[in-house]
This record gives sequence, structure tokens and C-alpha cells, in this order.
Amino acid sequence: MNAPVNFDQLEVGFDVPALPGMDAAEIQTPCLVLDLDALERNIRKMGDYARAHNMRHRVHGKMHKSVDVAKLQIKLGGAIGVCCQKVSEAEVFVRGGIIDVLVSNQVRDPRKIDRLAQLPKHGAKIIVCVDDIENVAELSDAAQKHGTTLECFVEIDCGAGRCGVTTADAAVEIAQAIDAAKGLKFTGIQAYQGAMQHLDSYEARRDKLNVAIAQVKEAVAALEAVGLKPELVSGGGTGSYYFESNSGVYNELQCGSYAFMDADYGRILDKDGNRIDNGEWENAFFILTQVMSHAKTDKAICDAGLKAQSVDSGLPVVFGRTDVEYVKCSDEHGVIADPSGVLKVGEKLKLVPGHCDPTANVHDWYVGVRDGKVEQLWPVSARGRAY
Amino acid sequence: MNAPVNFDQLEVGFDVPALPGMDAAEIQTPCLVLDLDALERNIRKMGDYARAHNMRHRVHGKMHKSVDVAKLQIKLGGAIGVCCQKVSEAEVFVRGGIIDVLVSNQVRDPRKIDRLAQLPKHGAKIIVCVDDIENVAELSDAAQKHGTTLECFVEIDCGAGRCGVTTADAAVEIAQAIDAAKGLKFTGIQAYQGAMQHLDSYEARRDKLNVAIAQVKEAVAALEAVGLKPELVSGGGTGSYYFESNSGVYNELQCGSYAFMDADYGRILDKDGNRIDNGEWENAFFILTQVMSHAKTDKAICDAGLKAQSVDSGLPVVFGRTDVEYVKCSDEHGVIADPSGVLKVGEKLKLVPGHCDPTANVHDWYVGVRDGKVEQLWPVSARGRAY
Repeated sequence: MNAPVNFDQLEVGFDVPALPGMDAAEIQTPCLVLDLDALERNIRKMGDYARAHNMRHRVHGKMHKSVDVAKLQIKLGGAIGVCCQKVSEAEVFVRGGIIDVLVSNQVRDPRKIDRLAQLPKHGAKIIVCVDDIENVAELSDAAQKHGTTLECFVEIDCGAGRCGVTTADAAVEIAQAIDAAKGLKFTGIQAYQGAMQHLDSYEARRDKLNVAIAQVKEAVAALEAVGLKPELVSGGGTGSYYFESNSGVYNELQCGSYAFMDADYGRILDKDGNRIDNGEWENAFFILTQVMSHAKTDKAICDAGLKAQSVDSGLPVVFGRTDVEYVKCSDEHGVIADPSGVLKVGEKLKLVPGHCDPTANVHDWYVGVRDGKVEQLWPVSARGRAY
Repeated sequence: MNAPVNFDQLEVGFDVPALPGMDAAEIQTPCLVLDLDALERNIRKMGDYARAHNMRHRVHGKMHKSVDVAKLQIKLGGAIGVCCQKVSEAEVFVRGGIIDVLVSNQVRDPRKIDRLAQLPKHGAKIIVCVDDIENVAELSDAAQKHGTTLECFVEIDCGAGRCGVTTADAAVEIAQAIDAAKGLKFTGIQAYQGAMQHLDSYEARRDKLNVAIAQVKEAVAALEAVGLKPELVSGGGTGSYYFESNSGVYNELQCGSYAFMDADYGRILDKDGNRIDNGEWENAFFILTQVMSHAKTDKAICDAGLKAQSVDSGLPVVFGRTDVEYVKCSDEHGVIADPSGVLKVGEKLKLVPGHCDPTANVHDWYVGVRDGKVEQLWPVSARGRAY
């Protein structure tokens, strides 16, 4: 998926939903559409913020799984590289020319570790997270086998309740083991608080993040006390980046969703009580859908169902419309309440999906649109790379 | 995706989760695994049932989106062909050699209609659903343009509340228009009651289906009265096929999920009050996942999250285990409650997904396993073909 797209071999409607140069009205549905102007504004805005706060921004590539979007984030937003969650995603980004990649996750399978340890051969700086001292020897053996260096973050669970150690002592113990292991380098701390990002209230998010920051500061102090000052302290998401940026301890952000926005994130409130999709970020990411049946006067059936999105975080919202509402989703159908019967068969609507990350992962292509024309057709490069 | 798979070009862990001949223990996670023995038993059992009840079985290809599984259903289960929901899916099945294909849906976009009307040129019998008289001229024009015949079902909404007409008069009006249109043939009725398939109670499902059957009988009588006796009356799913089979009016089934089973279907009860995944059908379809972190003693983190499944119908169930429970799902992580701390990092578990159709659509490959060995690697041929 990283080879340049040969548009001549792609058939619109079978292989791809659109080709560059087409009118936006001709795009085949359902598919993902990016508003390129909005996307670029979001990317520049986060880049400006990070620069003004002296933060590195390692954009989260698991959100879009796209080499092209990542390169735009590097070019327009000053991103220093990407993070991602899987070895196979890291392989896609490295093959695509992104040379600073953090796998913000544990890698424990022997075959996956072996693959990961080969990536630095391609000129890439590779960082991986560790939360178990037994993993240190596994990573070290593979790096030595391939004559490479794997950089390591010790992952601290600062509230997400998933991977990561919970005490400064455990962090120090693992960091020391990494520091002593051949082929490994202790580079810093992974401390992403994923469980608070979607809380509506700014204050509730701040309170959770303050607990995380205190925990990270304690770990950093403990590491410094043994001569292992972390070069990088990394974390932060679209619902929290201002807290990490002003913490005095984090120096790297990992925001992803800000670039696309989605309905679930859009609902959270900023410090002034405004929805973050109403000023802070723009909706740049849509499912384009078409009405395919209107046999009942008060409901339209559209062609975007469960195969065109993930509804884990709720149903999509019809963008820019208050007169119609997406109310039900089955495999291949969406039911749109249309009480006034305003929709016509064949009409196209833009849906803001509930959750951008798993929705992007269902599709093979992003159709980039500007001024009513298809400008870009980008593959979802790491789509399906879950292993 | 329909070309024969060239295994020599596929790299395990990057391109594919496994290759034929590998030990099942080496399969890279997360991925889809099919228990081939269970799959074949399910397929044979439904085939035997349909034959014994003199019903045609048009298997629902939207469930698995796989040419290989469809061919197995034809070979072992006597299926007469497939149904699917999208023109792009129909194209994949026809290119893969399946020559009797129903698009059990409306096709309204001009480009899609044009593509559909070309499929009979490849030797395929193509049926499409109609619920709007304006669609008749659109389909007729395209069939005439390409010199082909499109067969048409009039879709009756018999309770699903999506597409389809609701009165016998409307069905007759559309059938007459189809019958009069050049390039089209009126073949029958689409009457799938999707809204009752997952009701737990057998009696509740029967009551809903009795309403549907009465409605279909009325439509058939009205069509016969104008000389348009339907050749096919098609419908039925895994939660209802015995009702349609004994209705005296349906002659074609469209079951899909029976072949794979999933957690949501498995919970519904048969007429004796037994779960249908406990005797009627076997779980043949799994997400294979691996424990990647166990930093907390009472929970294990596995590598199958929202990118490896759809949770629209609930979380997955850990197959064959009562001591551990999949309790939470985020993008790339599953949290497994492990109160006794029995799971080890690196251990693999089989998950029964909540909903098979959209879960299959997230993956590129089925890994077919028998006797502890990988026997088949089948592409999810129509994955992502939503347009």
C-alpha cells in the first residue's frame, strides 16, 4: 500500500470511490471524504500550538493509518514523526518514509519482536513501550541479533487502566534493566491517560490529568535519582494536550483525532464551555453517503451502515443538518429520520462518524476534496494492519 | 482480490497473519480464524435442511464477503448462489465465478446501475431489488444500453422498517412496471424480516414472522391475480429459516450467519429453549488474540480491540472459558478480567465476536485451521466493497 498509487489501474466504483479531478458530486458512496482545507487548518493550528509551547508533536498514526496524512502533519504541522500501536503499522510508516516511529504499545510475540528489531536497518529510529522486565531481554536479544538499537519507553499507567506499571519503583527497575541491556536505549516515559480524553467537562479532564502529571513527576524524579533522566516524556491527546503542555514535565504530545475530529470528541467542552468542534477544531473527516430508498415518507434509507463505520462511540451525525437525523444502523443501511420528507433518493449527505479511528480502519481510501473537486485519493495505508 | 493467492509473495506478520502449513500456534494475532471442521458441518447441516424442505438456499455473501466460503457453501451445502448488498460485492462474486447473484438491495446511483447492468455479460444471472417505480426506468435504460437482462425482485418491507413497499397494491404496481419494461424481468419477491432475527424468544420470532408471512401471501395473491406469479419468494435468516421453510409461500432462503455463528446470534433460543450455539450451530468463526500485557494481577490486556472487530452487538466472548472475561474494548486493546491471574503474556485466546458480518469486514484474511494446522488462507474477497 505504500507504492505510489497508479490511478490508471483503478476503476471508479469497483476499486476506488473516486479519482482526482472528478467533481465531488460524482464520488461513489459510501466512502471517506476529507475536507482538505479544514484538515490543513487543523494540522497547522496544532503545529502552532506545539511550537509555541516548546512541545514536540509525535502525531498518532493509529488514528488515520495514512502515510500521506502523516507526511502532511510533518510538512504543515512540524510533527517530528508518528506513534502507532502495532508493529505492522510501524512497518507501513517506515516503508512510507516516516523515520521516527514510536510503537506506543508492548510487543511480546517473538515474531513481532524480530520484525520490530529489523526496522532500524531502514534508517528509522524506533521506540517501543515496556511494562514488564521480562520483555527487556526479549527486545535486547532481537536487537543484538539484527545489530540494531531499539529505544525504549517505560510505560506508566497514569489512569487508562490498560498497559503500564503503576509505581515509580517499577518504572525505575525496568528503566535500569533497559539501560543495562545490550541493543537497547532507555529514552523516556510513555504516559498517555486515555480514559479521560472523552469526558465532557474540562474540569473533570483537568482533575484526572493532574493526578497523571503528579504520578509522572514522581517517576521522573525517581529516575533522575538513579541517573536515568528521561530524554522524552510523551503523552497527551486531543482532550488533554494543553494540560501536558503546561505540566512542566511532558515534552512530547501524541494527539491524533484533532486533525479529523469526530462526533464523540466534538461533544467535549473547552475551558469556556464550548464544544471543541465549534471553534477549537473543524470537522475535516466525513462518511459520504447516499439516500437509496425513501419508500416511507418519514424516513430515508442511506447506504452507510456498520460496514462503513464503527458505532462504538455512538451513531454518526448528519453534518450541517438539523432537519434530519441518523437514528439507526444495520450492516449496510442507515435509517435517517426525515419527518418533513425533505430528502430525495440519490441525494448525498456528509456524516460525522462517532469515532474516527475505527471508522477510518474500515475503508481503503480517503477522498480529499477542495472547492468541489476531488484533489487527492490517498490509501488508508495501514488499514487492517492489526497484527 | 479474486486472483488466486500467490503465497510466495506474502510475508507472515506484515501481509498475512499465517500461511498454509504453519502450526496454528504460530498464527499472528489478531486475526480471523475459521474452524474448518465446524464450518463444514454448519454448511452441510443447513444444506440438508434446505433440501429436505424443498427450499433453494441463496447464501448471504454480505456476511463473509468471501468467494471461497461461498464456493464451499455451493459445493457442500448445495447453495444455488449468493445474495449480497452492494454492486461492488456482486462484482467480486461474479469475477470469482459465482454466477447467480441477488443484490438484496436498491441500486439508485447512475454509475452503480450502469455497472450492475454489465454483470450479465459475464454469464451471470443478476437479480436486484426495487421499491420505487422510478427505479424501473433507470434499470431498464441501463439494461437496454448494455443489451442485458436484469431480473427484479419487488422488495416488501415485512417488518424490518428499512427499504421496501408495505402494501400489496404498491408491490403489484411496481411488478407490472418491471414486467412492461424492456431489459427487465419480474422474478419475484424479496421479503426479509431483519428486525426479528435476534429476538431471544422463539415464540416472539415466530409471531413476527407470522405477520410477515401473511403480508407476503397477500402480495403473492395480488400478483397472481394480475398474472404475475412470482417465480421466487426469497427471505429468511439464521433466526427464522424454519418459519419461511414451512410457510408454504417462500421458496428461497437467504441465511448467512449460521455458517460462522457469533455471540449475539448464539444467545437466541430454539423452540426447546436452548441457545442456538449449543446444538443447532457451532462456533466456527473466531478472533484469535494474544495477551500482550499483564502488568496488573487481575487483568490481562489483549491485542484485539475496535480495529479487530465491531462491537455494535456487544463485546466478544472468550471461547470455552468461564474463568476469564473480555470486559472492555478500546482501539487496539481488549481488557480481559482475569481474577485468578491464570493468563500468561503471550498466551492466545479465541474470541467469539458479537457480530460476525461487520467483524469479518475489518479483516483482510481468513485463516482456516484443522487439526492444529493452518490449512487455508482465504482473502475476505469483498472486504471494504461498500460502494
